[in-house]
Amino acid sequence: MIKRIALLGSTGSIGTQTLEVIDGLGDDYQVVALAAGGNYELLAKQISKYKPEYAALVNEKNLEKLKTIVNGERCQFGKGPEGQLLAARWPSADLVVIAQVGFSGFEPLIAALESGKRIALANKESLVIGGEILQRFGLLDRERIFPVDSEHSAIKQCWTAKYQEEIARIYITASGGPFYGMTQTELQKVTPQDALKHPNWQMGPKITIDSATMMNKGLEVIEAKWLFDLSLDQIKVVIHRQSIVHSMVEYVDGSTIAQLGMPDMRTPIQYALTYPERKKSLVRSYNPYGTTLTFAEPDHVNFPSLKLAFRAAEAGGTMPAVLNGANEVAVELFLAGTLIFNAIPILIEKVMALHDNIKIPEVSDVIAANHWARNMALEVGSVLRERMD
Amino acid sequence: MIKRIALLGSTGSIGTQTLEVIDGLGDDYQVVALAAGGNYELLAKQISKYKPEYAALVNEKNLEKLKTIVNGERCQFGKGPEGQLLAARWPSADLVVIAQVGFSGFEPLIAALESGKRIALANKESLVIGGEILQRFGLLDRERIFPVDSEHSAIKQCWTAKYQEEIARIYITASGGPFYGMTQTELQKVTPQDALKHPNWQMGPKITIDSATMMNKGLEVIEAKWLFDLSLDQIKVVIHRQSIVHSMVEYVDGSTIAQLGMPDMRTPIQYALTYPERKKSLVRSYNPYGTTLTFAEPDHVNFPSLKLAFRAAEAGGTMPAVLNGANEVAVELFLAGTLIFNAIPILIEKVMALHDNIKIPEVSDVIAANHWARNMALEVGSVLRERMD
Repeated sequence: MIKRIALLGSTGSIGTQTLEVIDGLGDDYQVVALAAGGNYELLAKQISKYKPEYAALVNEKNLEKLKTIVNGERCQFGKGPEGQLLAARWPSADLVVIAQVGFSGFEPLIAALESGKRIALANKESLVIGGEILQRFGLLDRERIFPVDSEHSAIKQCWTAKYQEEIARIYITASGGPFYGMTQTELQKVTPQDALKHPNWQMGPKITIDSATMMNKGLEVIEAKWLFDLSLDQIKVVIHRQSIVHSMVEYVDGSTIAQLGMPDMRTPIQYALTYPERKKSLVRSYNPYGTTLTFAEPDHVNFPSLKLAFRAAEAGGTMPAVLNGANEVAVELFLAGTLIFNAIPILIEKVMALHDNIKIPEVSDVIAANHWARNMALEVGSVLRERMD
Repeated sequence: MIKRIALLGSTGSIGTQTLEVIDGLGDDYQVVALAAGGNYELLAKQISKYKPEYAALVNEKNLEKLKTIVNGERCQFGKGPEGQLLAARWPSADLVVIAQVGFSGFEPLIAALESGKRIALANKESLVIGGEILQRFGLLDRERIFPVDSEHSAIKQCWTAKYQEEIARIYITASGGPFYGMTQTELQKVTPQDALKHPNWQMGPKITIDSATMMNKGLEVIEAKWLFDLSLDQIKVVIHRQSIVHSMVEYVDGSTIAQLGMPDMRTPIQYALTYPERKKSLVRSYNPYGTTLTFAEPDHVNFPSLKLAFRAAEAGGTMPAVLNGANEVAVELFLAGTLIFNAIPILIEKVMALHDNIKIPEVSDVIAANHWARNMALEVGSVLRERMD
């Protein structure tokens, strides 16, 4: 049976890897709709290659240039956020890949869910910021949302429970990032360049810094809470330096199921596309011979961001949006060289402390809280900087 | 829904652990039939406690004593192999646990399968000796046969494939036994007492010696071939000293699923009883924090038994029965102090070389081959001993 795919965020890292996976899967997988932010040149190439029925460019100022390049292709065009929403609802699509970065993925996700599509979800913010709202709307249908990141895909792959009460807990693995094992004093001297050297994964700068602070794992904890309907005390983080075990599910009978593999995003992407079947892929498999796998407690003293995420999730309401917004700015300031590494969690914690939490928020409330947190983080950031100068 | 269980081999190690698991599961699990070999005193206690509708004693000479002890219980009695077969077919049973030792488990297995029961299979010989016959009879229904040993249960737990072609290979883990790392010269001096000290599992003497020679893993490879319909080159053995990962399934998409847990036979027993659900158990779960898991190639030079098993499986026909029979005698001779440890695989190899393989055997052929191998092993054993004296 042919699967028809709408791909949102097609020119980004997950978007281009999704197309690679589709190339490998052959003719049973067709791209029927594409949506990109602003990279019209790459989108044009994708239109020529995949011949979608529809393509949207969110940053509409280059739409005419796009049309000129692909002149002759039978393709309908859309623009702006509405154009992207149309891609999410594209009638002939069975499966929508939500791969754009930021909370702009939230409305397309809702549109796709309401249209009855199956979802491959690579957009973290939708769940971190909007998870509670999705749940309240009754949209967190686990049979339709397939996480596209290695940890949550691993949990999905290990999850064979029919009933929630079969689950004891999950273990989300964390590589620990490039600074694992360092003390506060050592961490004061690390540079953005040091932080961007991730030992196991090739990723963008934001997520690589999040990985170094352990905030990435914190955001994943919040995602997991919503995706798998778990309480926070059922979610454990375990340091696993080798990045081979991508996560584990422990059942109430004392049995634990783990998913292992080489660190490669194409595995969770392909699993989301081919589920419930598995198909051949070009990803190298894990060869266990001669390997050693280690597991350790996270270091909460030197890497306090993880606990902040648990705290934000515990608070609920708009607090996860504040955690997310403040963290975004803190990472930007660190990358710009205006905030030291250790100050990232300090800044986030201060912004969280200043926030007046809305316990049962609407979409507009979480968007406002995220913006408020970004602005407040800039203010707090300059105060912190002055104090350190 | 109440599950009604017939338990064959109720007084053995797996049998008594099965009753422990049933105790923990509560009233939804009822024992409706019991069958034991000769331990009528323990069987009497089990009848008083579980109030089965039927109980069989294979060794019939103590049947009257049994009846006297349990006088007053509403229970029908059976005797001999026919009595055991009746337990396997017991009308009110949904699930039959085949937990007796030796090839005597084969006929009850066929009877239970033909009666449409679900099976919890702890009897190795049924598959090692009879796997090919079961397949030819179309009885190897994977939805009905649940393996009760840690490795095959692990594979079952990790196996979510709808189609066989989704599977790349499986990794059966092996602790390596007490002598792993030793050389031939060192192995010449090991005693039965040394061999009986298994690092991770509490088991009977036969299986503990099989674990020390790696023949246990060889027999498991043959079982896995039949249980999971795999070719021999899809079955890998990996040394894993910690006995935490009980086996792994590698899919064609490059993803590997592993089952982990403390070494405890109650886990596979309970999984076979409660499938497709999981229920709370008293088994301690695996806590990953602070653990290290290692994986290595088996040492085929110092532990050649594993290769002999692959060779017997490759030959097929009556050869696995010969491997099994020769190995039983070799282990008996080693335990009796009349064969050195290194001579176990030598003896088996010689008996296999002398065997005239029947490629498409009947049940009577494999029984005859097993007996022939036992007798031949005794002869070859005395020749080997003379040569060494």
